[in-house]
Parts: sequence; C-alpha cells; structure tokens
Amino acid sequence: MDFLRRQKNLREQLVNTRLDALLISHLPNIRYLCGFTGSAGLLLVYETGSVFFTDVRYDTQSRAEVKGAKVIIARKALMNALGERLDARWKKSKKWKIGIEAEHLTVAEQKRLTALVPTGVGVRSTAMLVERARMVKDDDELRLIRSAVQLGATLFDRALAVLKPGIKESEVAAEMEYAARKSGAEEMSFPTIIASGARSALPHGRATEQVIASGGFVVCDFGVILGGYCSDQTRTVWVGRDGEEARSAYQAVREAQAAAIAAVRPGVRVGEVDLAARKVLRKAGLGRRFTHSTGHGVGLEIHESPRVAAGQAEVLKSGMVITIEPGVYFPGKWGVRIEDMVAVNENGCEVLTPTSKDFLAV
Amino acid sequence: MDFLRRQKNLREQLVNTRLDALLISHLPNIRYLCGFTGSAGLLLVYETGSVFFTDVRYDTQSRAEVKGAKVIIARKALMNALGERLDARWKKSKKWKIGIEAEHLTVAEQKRLTALVPTGVGVRSTAMLVERARMVKDDDELRLIRSAVQLGATLFDRALAVLKPGIKESEVAAEMEYAARKSGAEEMSFPTIIASGARSALPHGRATEQVIASGGFVVCDFGVILGGYCSDQTRTVWVGRDGEEARSAYQAVREAQAAAIAAVRPGVRVGEVDLAARKVLRKAGLGRRFTHSTGHGVGLEIHESPRVAAGQAEVLKSGMVITIEPGVYFPGKWGVRIEDMVAVNENGCEVLTPTSKDFLAV
Repeated sequence: MDFLRRQKNLREQLVNTRLDALLISHLPNIRYLCGFTGSAGLLLVYETGSVFFTDVRYDTQSRAEVKGAKVIIARKALMNALGERLDARWKKSKKWKIGIEAEHLTVAEQKRLTALVPTGVGVRSTAMLVERARMVKDDDELRLIRSAVQLGATLFDRALAVLKPGIKESEVAAEMEYAARKSGAEEMSFPTIIASGARSALPHGRATEQVIASGGFVVCDFGVILGGYCSDQTRTVWVGRDGEEARSAYQAVREAQAAAIAAVRPGVRVGEVDLAARKVLRKAGLGRRFTHSTGHGVGLEIHESPRVAAGQAEVLKSGMVITIEPGVYFPGKWGVRIEDMVAVNENGCEVLTPTSKDFLAV
Repeated sequence: MDFLRRQKNLREQLVNTRLDALLISHLPNIRYLCGFTGSAGLLLVYETGSVFFTDVRYDTQSRAEVKGAKVIIARKALMNALGERLDARWKKSKKWKIGIEAEHLTVAEQKRLTALVPTGVGVRSTAMLVERARMVKDDDELRLIRSAVQLGATLFDRALAVLKPGIKESEVAAEMEYAARKSGAEEMSFPTIIASGARSALPHGRATEQVIASGGFVVCDFGVILGGYCSDQTRTVWVGRDGEEARSAYQAVREAQAAAIAAVRPGVRVGEVDLAARKVLRKAGLGRRFTHSTGHGVGLEIHESPRVAAGQAEVLKSGMVITIEPGVYFPGKWGVRIEDMVAVNENGCEVLTPTSKDFLAV
C-alpha cells in the first residue's frame, strides 16, 4: 500500500481547503492513510509530517503497522496526548487551523479537543476529505477487493450445499461463516442475512432460528473481510416447487440489475444508474416494491461513498467499486434481491462477483 | 422488558436536568428504551410521550419491536423527519430545550439538528443519561446475560477439543464461532481473540492464520450475543511442556483476578477493585506487565460503563455486571489473561462465568 502517496494527496487537499492540519479519527480513514488496523487511534496529518496516537495495548502492533507517521503511545486519553503534542510543538503557531472529521467526531470529542488546543488555534469542520479519495480504489486495493469477492462467492456454494426445507436460517449462516473462517477470511463484513419465507421481504433480515419452509424465497446477503477489504453479495433462491409469479418477479429484478450494470461507466451520475434499475421495475409494475436504493461503494468499509441512489449527483470514475442490488419486497409474503459488486473501468465496468444469477429452485 | 418503566425513569432524569426532551441516537440506548434492534433510528423522549423514527427498510420490524413510542417511517433523512415533527408539534414552544447524547452524536449531525429545530428551541449536550441507567441491570437483563455467559462458556470446551500444535489460530476461532451459531448465538460479541506464541503478548491479538506452536501460551478471549446481551470471557492455556516461569506468572494472574473479585461489593469504588488486582501483581514483581485496566461493564454492548480502572470513582451497585480481567504481557515472548463476568449483589458478587481457572497445558 502506498501510504505516503495517500498522505501526500491529503496534504494537497489541506492546502486547497486552507487548513494547516487534519485530525483523522475515523478508523477506516486512519487505516487507509497509515495502515493501522487496531481499534483506538488518532492521526494528525500536517504539512511537514504525520503523528499517530494510540494506547499501550497497541504498542507492538502500531510500531509494526504504521507507515509514514511518528507513533506516540499515549499513557492517557488520546485526545490529551494530542493536546500536549500540539502545545509543545505549535504553541507559537497562533493562527493554526486544524480540520476535524465532522461526520465522525462526536460533539463531546470536539469539545474536549477545542479545550485542549493551544490558544488561537482554530478547529474547523470538514467533510469527506479522506472518503472522497477512498472512493477511487488504487491497484493494490482492487487486487484485495477481487480476492475478498472471490472468497465471498465460495460461501454461496456452501449455502446451496445445505439449503433445504427443515434447516434453520442460522444453520445456513453457520456453515457459510465456518467456511469463511476456514478459507482465511478475517471476519464477515456484516451480519449474515439469510431471510426465508415472509422474512425475505425484510431487506435486513438477519439469519434467525427460523426453520426454512418449502414454497418461498430465501434471500442470502453476505460478505467477508479479507486483507481488510469487504465483499458484499446477494443471491435469492426459491425453496420447493416454484410458480410463475415468483419466476416473473425474479426475472424483473434480474433485468433491473442488468440494466443498472449496463449504465455504469465513467462520467455517469450514480443517480442515473439507480434510475436504470428503477425504470425496469416500474415497467414491470414493481416500482413501488423497490423500496431501497440501488447500491453503495464498498472497500475498507461495507458501506462507503458513493450512495447509488435516486437523484444522487456523484459522478462515476474509473476505479470506483460499487454494489448493484435492486430488490422487490411484498411484506408478509416474500422478497427478491440480486447483488453484485462491480468495478468501474474505462470501458464501463467489470462485474467482480462470479456467481450465476439464473433462477434457482432447491 | 419493561420499556415503559425505563422511559419513565428517563423522564424523571429530564426533569432533574431541566430538559424538555432527549434525542437518543445511540442504538444500544434506543434498544434499551424501546426495543428496536435495527441499525437506523432516532428516539425522542419527552414529558408526555416518545416518538421513534426509522427508515422504510425497518417498517415491518419496527412496528413489531418498538414499545412505548409512536413509530414514524421516514421517507427522508431521519433528522429531517424529526425536524418536521418538532416544527409541527412544538413550533409554539419557544423555550423548549432538547438534550443530545454528546458522546455519540457527531458534530455534523448536531449541526443539522440545530439548523432543523424551530427557532428558539435550544440544543444542549448531555452525557451518560441512558448509560447511567443501563449500568444497573434489571432482572430481565440479568436473566439474558446469564444465558449469554452460559452459552459463551461452552465455546471454550470446543476450543480445547481442537487446540493443539499445528492448528491455525483462525481454525480454533472457526470451530468456536461455528459452535456459537449452532447453539443459537446471534453473533460473536467482538472479533474472537486467539493469540498464540509471541502474539499472546498482544492484549488484542485477533485470531490470524498463524499456526499454533508448542511451548507457549494461547490467550482465548471471546464472547457471544444472545437475546441482545453480550458475554465476555478469557482463558489462557499453555501448549506443550510447561515450565516454572509460565506457571508462576499464570498463578499470579489468577491470584490477582481472585483478589479483584473478592473486592467487588456494593459501595466499593471501581478503582479499588482495580487496585486489588494490581497490588497482587506488583507484589509478584509483575506490576509493570499489567498494562491495561481490570475490567468494564457488559450488557447490550461489550464495553459499557463503568470502566474498572485505576483511580475511577464510580461506586458499585447491586445489579451491575462487570468483567474482571487482569493480565501480564512480555512483549515478544508471551502473555496471560484470565477474565470472568461477575454480577454485583448484596453479598458481594456472583461469578457468572462457570469455566475452571486451573492452569491447563494441552
């Protein structure tokens, strides 16, 4: 990972935004900039350097992981250690302006920071400075994402091997998660969704103790973290004997998903991608059943920018990685969702998820 | 769960703090107050009622789960839906004061809220209003915590069944997590720590692909979520032929843990509990090797108040549930930690974790 280049890019941003430094408190942003993977840290990036603060639990780990930043092991609250450092080094820089990540720093943390900075140093809200850079993945990241998606996809084969009437949703999830661990996944990228019967109409139906019955859809939405990067995939299968209504709803979602994927290319607004899926479902009379947005960015976090949603103006660029996941939901009855991850490239996009999307009844 | 009583207690707090309402944005606090288990919500509790805002993904689920609050399914950002509601209902309450959870609400969310509230309505920071109530568990919660701890403890038996030189740390974690799912756990309460060899000296050594070798400690720190409540337990085992040095360090940690448990009773400051463990390790010449605090509260979250740490003044009350987990760490060599969950009661405390703490070599 080229952490130095990432920090250099951020420094250029700081000049543009007239900030002398940025305090990064959001852990995925810290990982992106300096490689630290632990659960407690603060990174200060300024014109001529970077300082990383963590606590004693991460002494050994931070020294091994952190690149491009001086590591300070704080014996007190990290914010206090930062305050001391600012005081010692910049007490004469009366007009220093430090940016904070306003979407992540809490009101209480901001208050503590403001009380700790030397007199005259200003604290300014910023938004998306690091997230904006993270939207476009570099080659190292694309390689890691491909590996995560490939591993993640194998879990669906495992699900199909056990999915049958009489098994619990949680047992299907158990088999998938076990296979993930055995294959080297660090963890699941979010709580595994195995939603059967009427629960398939819940877009966020986490696996429960419910026994899967014949005659309904099962939505399987799952992903792994490998090398720090997330995969995210959904397949929906029918259990038992299927009928025309289920097949035609499935087909409509599949076509909507294909239309959205076909719309993905550099220069296109994400709102247009969303609209491409929505148009197909509207035409099929299912527009009102598509109750969520079409997708989202994926990377170090399972949900990143851009949001691929109605009216969103963010413009796709080569290197962005997003999900395309339209779905239709009939509350109390069933639901269908199909989701792939795609990487935007100069020709349009590459569908990363290798799994078949043919209608499948088990 | 007696959600109405919890909300009633909060309303009494609001009167004491001269607030007209509290906006609860921290999801575990929302779950505690009204039962919602999803990932997006805002709860406004005021003198004469409560309103809960979520998005369309949680339509069915929120109507089934939420008690004691009117449910509003927002078609826009939750904060905007809240703003509209405030505007419609309280536009004449010029001097209304709304509390926010300053330790959880972000700077950006506070800014949006402030822009949305009707003119004259004040936004005030609060801290720990719900967390303070959550520190003392009620009988329903103690029952759920006991079940989670019992289930969690069975995973260690599973670990012992597979732990031997040549197996990867991640394979041990895989077996434990698989057993957890099969037993009905909703998820692990944190990433499973299986730290072998020199990695056992990392207090947060998540399971990796490292192959476990003979002649070292393996720290196993793990927990499940069952019924929404977390378990948290650590056992450390020796792999291969053990020596005197390992045994005596283990024995010192065990005695430190016992001393801290013996210090737990209502009316005692948590700092005294920490000191009880620390004194034993100092006497054994290991004081500087005990680099973290002695424990923390556990409940809906894996880390809750109180922090059982040096100098902390919080006073133990009957019904609090905390971990007692001293450890010693020799960087580059090995580490030992022993952790139980205990529930404070009128006689002192009940050790909830049933697993033996005898020195074990496998």
